[in-house]
Amino acid sequence: MTKYFEDFSTGEVFDLGEVEVTEEAIIEFAERYDPQPFHIDPDAAVDSPFGGLVASGWHTCAMFMRLFCDGLLFDSSSQGSSGMEEVRWLAPVRPGDTLRGRVEVLETKRSGTRPNRGTVFFRHEMVNQDDVVVMRMVGRGLYGTRHDASD
Amino acid sequence: MTKYFEDFSTGEVFDLGEVEVTEEAIIEFAERYDPQPFHIDPDAAVDSPFGGLVASGWHTCAMFMRLFCDGLLFDSSSQGSSGMEEVRWLAPVRPGDTLRGRVEVLETKRSGTRPNRGTVFFRHEMVNQDDVVVMRMVGRGLYGTRHDASD
Repeated sequence: MTKYFEDFSTGEVFDLGEVEVTEEAIIEFAERYDPQPFHIDPDAAVDSPFGGLVASGWHTCAMFMRLFCDGLLFDSSSQGSSGMEEVRWLAPVRPGDTLRGRVEVLETKRSGTRPNRGTVFFRHEMVNQDDVVVMRMVGRGLYGTRHDASD
Repeated sequence: MTKYFEDFSTGEVFDLGEVEVTEEAIIEFAERYDPQPFHIDPDAAVDSPFGGLVASGWHTCAMFMRLFCDGLLFDSSSQGSSGMEEVRWLAPVRPGDTLRGRVEVLETKRSGTRPNRGTVFFRHEMVNQDDVVVMRMVGRGLYGTRHDASD
């Protein structure tokens, strides 16, 4: 069932399942990594531009990564990623939200120098229960081919 | 001492201080958000392309964010960020590494429609104890001006 480089097609969409966002998880992440008042203090957050507690953008990226692992990466020949483009935090993520991960294949490019692998470019999105896209980014990953060219 | 929009100059560099990376922190983050074997299992990681346990790229971003909060953001008129460009994980981050955050101002742009704020574009970097840049990205943030134009 593993997905290899050849198995990705431009335009293909993967549903990665969903994650419930709790106030506890928002505060736990932010106290360690992004302790701005509107991420860690529900009372102070009321007077912030967000009008209430919101998740750190990095927390949303991390929650996406977990859905991506469970929903696609662990069933693939992934060899890692060198980075992301155009990370956008588009709408607040609040306690009680349910976020769904979605991935679309933008392009596939076999390596010119190492034909037993290739790069897949994806649009990654997190969408909330009201169908609002709260986070979008363009990712890339290296994937091994089905048959190792060195076989 | 707060830094307002006018106080950022192109080419200015900020040292954000450093963070020590522990095996415990790498595993704790990754078990929750990025449970690939080379992020959570020191034994399995030996046989991975990394030859040992490495931090999730998202963990490195999160550690950077904490340094950015403590080293600059909390002493500024920051109003948040809408995203990042060109996130690059350039070298492995391993247990025992000490990472230093560094920020360079690339450009400042006052808002055309709301003159009491402006956007600052930054190059963000994490550099390890051997002066290897392990992570680089281009960020942007909204900052209030020193004197509110509506005063």
